[in-house]
Amino acid sequence: MPGKIRIAQSVSFDTPASEQPYLHNRWHPDIPSIASVKPGETVKIECLDWTGGQIGNNDSADDVRDVDLTRIHYLTGPFDVEGSEPGDLLVVNITDIQPFDHSPWGFTGIFARENGGGFLDRHYPRAAKAIWDFDGIYCTSRHIPGVRFAGLIHPGILGCAPSPEVLAEWNRREAELIGACAHSHPEQVVALAPLETNAHTGRAGGELKARVAREGARTIPGRPEHGGNVDINNISRGSTTYLPVHVPGAKFSVGDLHFSQGDGEISFCGAIEMAGIITIKFDLVKNGMKERAIKSPVYRPGDVAQLFGPSRYLTFEGFSVDESGKQHFLDATIAYRQACLRVIEYLKQVGYSGEQIYLLLSCAPIRGSIAGIVDVPNACTTLGLPMDIFDFDISVEAERVKRSLGACPVAD
Amino acid sequence: MPGKIRIAQSVSFDTPASEQPYLHNRWHPDIPSIASVKPGETVKIECLDWTGGQIGNNDSADDVRDVDLTRIHYLTGPFDVEGSEPGDLLVVNITDIQPFDHSPWGFTGIFARENGGGFLDRHYPRAAKAIWDFDGIYCTSRHIPGVRFAGLIHPGILGCAPSPEVLAEWNRREAELIGACAHSHPEQVVALAPLETNAHTGRAGGELKARVAREGARTIPGRPEHGGNVDINNISRGSTTYLPVHVPGAKFSVGDLHFSQGDGEISFCGAIEMAGIITIKFDLVKNGMKERAIKSPVYRPGDVAQLFGPSRYLTFEGFSVDESGKQHFLDATIAYRQACLRVIEYLKQVGYSGEQIYLLLSCAPIRGSIAGIVDVPNACTTLGLPMDIFDFDISVEAERVKRSLGACPVAD
Amino acid sequence: MPGKIRIAQSVSFDTPASEQPYLHNRWHPDIPSIASVKPGETVKIECLDWTGGQIGNNDSADDVRDVDLTRIHYLTGPFDVEGSEPGDLLVVNITDIQPFDHSPWGFTGIFARENGGGFLDRHYPRAAKAIWDFDGIYCTSRHIPGVRFAGLIHPGILGCAPSPEVLAEWNRREAELIGACAHSHPEQVVALAPLETNAHTGRAGGELKARVAREGARTIPGRPEHGGNVDINNISRGSTTYLPVHVPGAKFSVGDLHFSQGDGEISFCGAIEMAGIITIKFDLVKNGMKERAIKSPVYRPGDVAQLFGPSRYLTFEGFSVDESGKQHFLDATIAYRQACLRVIEYLKQVGYSGEQIYLLLSCAPIRGSIAGIVDVPNACTTLGLPMDIFDFDISVEAERVKRSLGACPVAD
Amino acid sequence: MPGKIRIAQSVSFDTPASEQPYLHNRWHPDIPSIASVKPGETVKIECLDWTGGQIGNNDSADDVRDVDLTRIHYLTGPFDVEGSEPGDLLVVNITDIQPFDHSPWGFTGIFARENGGGFLDRHYPRAAKAIWDFDGIYCTSRHIPGVRFAGLIHPGILGCAPSPEVLAEWNRREAELIGACAHSHPEQVVALAPLETNAHTGRAGGELKARVAREGARTIPGRPEHGGNVDINNISRGSTTYLPVHVPGAKFSVGDLHFSQGDGEISFCGAIEMAGIITIKFDLVKNGMKERAIKSPVYRPGDVAQLFGPSRYLTFEGFSVDESGKQHFLDATIAYRQACLRVIEYLKQVGYSGEQIYLLLSCAPIRGSIAGIVDVPNACTTLGLPMDIFDFDISVEAERVKRSLGACPVAD
Repeated sequence: MPGKIRIAQSVSFDTPASEQPYLHNRWHPDIPSIASVKPGETVKIECLDWTGGQIGNNDSADDVRDVDLTRIHYLTGPFDVEGSEPGDLLVVNITDIQPFDHSPWGFTGIFARENGGGFLDRHYPRAAKAIWDFDGIYCTSRHIPGVRFAGLIHPGILGCAPSPEVLAEWNRREAELIGACAHSHPEQVVALAPLETNAHTGRAGGELKARVAREGARTIPGRPEHGGNVDINNISRGSTTYLPVHVPGAKFSVGDLHFSQGDGEISFCGAIEMAGIITIKFDLVKNGMKERAIKSPVYRPGDVAQLFGPSRYLTFEGFSVDESGKQHFLDATIAYRQACLRVIEYLKQVGYSGEQIYLLLSCAPIRGSIAGIVDVPNACTTLGLPMDIFDFDISVEAERVKRSLGACPVAD
Repeated sequence: MPGKIRIAQSVSFDTPASEQPYLHNRWHPDIPSIASVKPGETVKIECLDWTGGQIGNNDSADDVRDVDLTRIHYLTGPFDVEGSEPGDLLVVNITDIQPFDHSPWGFTGIFARENGGGFLDRHYPRAAKAIWDFDGIYCTSRHIPGVRFAGLIHPGILGCAPSPEVLAEWNRREAELIGACAHSHPEQVVALAPLETNAHTGRAGGELKARVAREGARTIPGRPEHGGNVDINNISRGSTTYLPVHVPGAKFSVGDLHFSQGDGEISFCGAIEMAGIITIKFDLVKNGMKERAIKSPVYRPGDVAQLFGPSRYLTFEGFSVDESGKQHFLDATIAYRQACLRVIEYLKQVGYSGEQIYLLLSCAPIRGSIAGIVDVPNACTTLGLPMDIFDFDISVEAERVKRSLGACPVAD
Repeated sequence: MPGKIRIAQSVSFDTPASEQPYLHNRWHPDIPSIASVKPGETVKIECLDWTGGQIGNNDSADDVRDVDLTRIHYLTGPFDVEGSEPGDLLVVNITDIQPFDHSPWGFTGIFARENGGGFLDRHYPRAAKAIWDFDGIYCTSRHIPGVRFAGLIHPGILGCAPSPEVLAEWNRREAELIGACAHSHPEQVVALAPLETNAHTGRAGGELKARVAREGARTIPGRPEHGGNVDINNISRGSTTYLPVHVPGAKFSVGDLHFSQGDGEISFCGAIEMAGIITIKFDLVKNGMKERAIKSPVYRPGDVAQLFGPSRYLTFEGFSVDESGKQHFLDATIAYRQACLRVIEYLKQVGYSGEQIYLLLSCAPIRGSIAGIVDVPNACTTLGLPMDIFDFDISVEAERVKRSLGACPVAD
Repeated sequence: MPGKIRIAQSVSFDTPASEQPYLHNRWHPDIPSIASVKPGETVKIECLDWTGGQIGNNDSADDVRDVDLTRIHYLTGPFDVEGSEPGDLLVVNITDIQPFDHSPWGFTGIFARENGGGFLDRHYPRAAKAIWDFDGIYCTSRHIPGVRFAGLIHPGILGCAPSPEVLAEWNRREAELIGACAHSHPEQVVALAPLETNAHTGRAGGELKARVAREGARTIPGRPEHGGNVDINNISRGSTTYLPVHVPGAKFSVGDLHFSQGDGEISFCGAIEMAGIITIKFDLVKNGMKERAIKSPVYRPGDVAQLFGPSRYLTFEGFSVDESGKQHFLDATIAYRQACLRVIEYLKQVGYSGEQIYLLLSCAPIRGSIAGIVDVPNACTTLGLPMDIFDFDISVEAERVKRSLGACPVAD
């Protein structure tokens, strides 16, 4: 008879993240497994927030400005799943995710342009922050009054360890990009090479630790071979993800929990970042990569979602003509940036500051869609803003009213 | 007492599109208006398919291969909306769209790489076609058996005429791109300059016609200042779009009706293209561009939509690492291409050919989302495939079964 | 190659309904079939409104007050479906329903208590009417300003002819009820016995006509053996209904089209009644009644629906304690009446008259649900009112504002 | 700065429910308040299951058969809400509900016909039981294999204390029904009079306890004046209920938590009954009963729900002709019973026993709707069964396959 669900791994709020041996912040096949689960088994896994506690529940953005990005992301794992072999698909059915009862809050940050940056860092170069308080499924922020919404809680990062070959490929191609841009865009961080500083290699010690720190891939990008930091907001409660397995035992890790995130997570530290507990039912599709022709993760969202009527999304169009009026060729990234900027201009009219809106678009349940991607030279994207999250009417028809909507902390 | 809704403009299936004076295929402020509507009025507007009848309901893709793209898109208009002035927002509430009773079919095409191309033209360079038969709200194709879905009918193109200044800006920036790429990508059509050949300038004749043909912007791309060819599939029945007005009278045009289209419209002729009748209720927000801070079109989808449960979308992830393994920097366009390719590999397993799937992804109600766009160097996009449109189970768990799923015509 | 969909039967707006031989207003196995369709075939069937044109598009409720209910409902049919035999299930896939282009309006009526009555006739005994104008998928009424909604168009009546045995059973059990109530509730019409007056027996003439008129069941009630007047509002576009077949050829009839209807259709003439064209794809499940254990109709709604967010339904509770304070035993009918009365009291506060609200609840997309039906002695039902159909905010929190919301015609 | 949410009341799993002074199982204005909350405050309230622990997580239905119904329902409260007065509306925003971590299971019971009974007790007179195990948001049962669904967790009971006048009215009208039926239906329990046996009056002792026990209303029925045992399944996370206040301080109580429940809760102990923790944000609408014309509770469901596509509900029709073929007059209760019986016949074909289906319909997310309630003499109701909760295809078209689906415990 089933009883209480087993906690496969807990975390500590008292010990520094860097000293907790069941965490790691690099991807490498040789980070030792911390526990084992069986196919068909459901377990709970605790996670710290992605920064390992660098950001406080306060009204200053200095901690966001000064964040140490060599330390991130602190993931819990890796876990062995019994019987899994390279070529299998690991089935990850998230049956619950919750914040800790003792810690019902999260944060959204805009990183300073020179330390992390974000999608709109040319427009908003200074660090800023919003703290969100959780009230059950809802959240509100003293820094962005006038909005309240339910969170579609999800992990930003989930994936299995790379094989040595996969890791080598990652390092090769990212190094190539870094090299290619070194001259053309010297000021732009285009990718992050392996870095020994502050590498947390889990239980690996000594020589192994040194090697993992030297070779291990950074956790910032998601990657096609395993997923990783995909930041997909409907990989939430009830979802089922099929992850490629590259090493014996799968070596699954998870972390970077988000209370809520908008499509794009545009401010980079853009979700409502939190510590919490994820409950996962694991399973395997043996030899599924080949038999199902699956090279990258595939998933099905959960049945349970926040439901707004279609007509309740005020939707903004963005095209691949940049802020300076320059025409780009079918560039969906630039097109989405334009859509974001259009919303900011619009919402300034109702009383928010640019930083407040930038933070809000990062974490609220907005929808970013690829509308048309073939009509040369313009890609067209859309950004749907759910009007029901606001306490007041933001429709085009609504009377414009003076409102006092406070401020979010911005660092100098 | 209201009666039958007025037909503001009908079209002919007997006269060549190029000879119907209430159509036009270039954007220009001086194309003469064909009719006038009042704010608050609802009218019906008939439209030909975007090619003006170049594609037949048959089993050969030769017509798609040989399509004359200098002729497109045949739009109906422009219409004056009484009282509208530059700076207003034209409110376009689509209260219905239907195919013609006598013409219950549409087509989806893959253009040949050397004549139009598409999102995956390096992989599928040959022209191909699928004909879709409409059965009320549903469609099926003899060329892609095993699928049936309801159409979210919408216009690919809607917009107001550019002012001379806006038109000049379009021509400037697109010429700049063409110039910039002339050496670097000589084989790639990056944008289409104004072209007198087959320009249809509506009722404009003589000297005016010559000037419009010489200056008029092509209708292929959507553009931020007015919308145009946005190919947004939920600008459907019940939607309300707020369009910037740039010339007195607004000069609204519409066309390129789609029975259904997937996010991205990836094969370029990718929707289910059809002729039909759109019913629009017009209104104005006076001085709305400034007072609402709206520079590009904004819209609210309709309340009525095809509704699949969230968990019924089998969703594929795509990242900005291209087919050759080259790493790109936060390129959502490349990321979405990878997601498309992942689905094609997957669906080949159930029995379709690559061309069949490419056509299907172009026109079926798939969802293309921007998941994460800040985690250097990888943008992550997702493509959600609604499993309920298939007659058989396409889930990862389903047994793989040999199926005979016919073929779509492909041109040599 | 499929072409235009065949019209299996058209109707006339010039000839009286009683003289159109492809209509009938009684259920009987011997009404002659008017046409034949094949399994797998899609056809269009035209229908008059249920009264056969007794109600006009005007501002008087006299025609509703004086309606002749011996004439209703005018159904189109019966149609033979080739190969169908008793015990089969007839599969009715509604692929479209539309009003006639020349007749874009409908009506909702409150019948006078002494001629038809309705769910709240003790409270609203006088006849009243609202005319609705269709604007594509939407409707508005000059008699109930301030609301606009999309219609989920559906047939109130669809069913196959009864066998002689089924018909005899209907007449037996309904006569028994009439007899039982003759003394206890002499003033209450509890059921309608067969009635020769104004019986329309389709093509049946002479002796057959007389017999059908004498024996034929009235079309007012739905009945478990075949469906009939079920008034189920999501048997709409895209739905598939499985109907028991009782006679060779099935003898399918359809009519009583509704542009929109609330759960319960409480004012009896409560939907937005209209003439129109229904498109149906027919099929058969041979021997399905026995093999699937189906005695009464079963259906699947369509994928396409009007979608409001769950929280946009202001929902009222109703219990089985009647208006006089009398306690009834688990009576869901009384409970639903109480919920209706609660809404009327509430909406009077925003400015409507009782009759306007009664009409609105009858035809707008409200949800009537059975919440709890076992907690003696109170059944609990709920009535969900979609707040987004109103032009103004009807939430509990909204400021109460004086509004002038006109009036609907009420007959003396 | 907000911190951890306050637990306004905890419960014990070690002490008998009858000895926990912050519980009560009768409604009475004089049951002493146990705690006070402020408008605008969010608190957690713990609840036992409705029976106070009488049912075990085991494979025998004897405990269900032998349940002591004089003891139910154990509610937590009453709570004073500061500043509330008769005539106000108490705003209950449920921001979360969860089972206890240590108790991740619930039960659904069929009561024996002679001890509690249920909606189908003439057909299924014996006690039966299903135990459900919770896996995050999902549940499964070893007694009903082949189904899995997410719970829409909700309280069966929430309400404010009656005033002396309201209580007197309840006792009057229910006594009248009991009296009226004493001769006509002596074997039928039509309502439950106040009963001193096992009355739990919270902190009331001595004379007060005796009086409350003597006068206090039973908690079985919901009642129009305050709500109470409404068993409305979408008063779940995110919902906001407006409750009439009848006594100073409101005296709010809550309990009878359900992991999931189908519309109607047909087997009486029909939800998945559980102990758990509900989080509520309280507020007041001062004088709202009069100013908003609200006599019975009104609510708005939460934004977050389990979402199935409309076409995924296999929907059964039920009419007011009873099992013996007797015609009833517009009786929605009988009509819904017929719909339930139709589903049972249908699902027996896929391999379940009658008791298994009866239990499943009670607790799974089925939809019970009032379709037509005016077409004399037949009310028509519908029961929508979500096909996606089954592991196998239950559609009409699916091949019928022999399945071994176990059994649920049934008591002799």
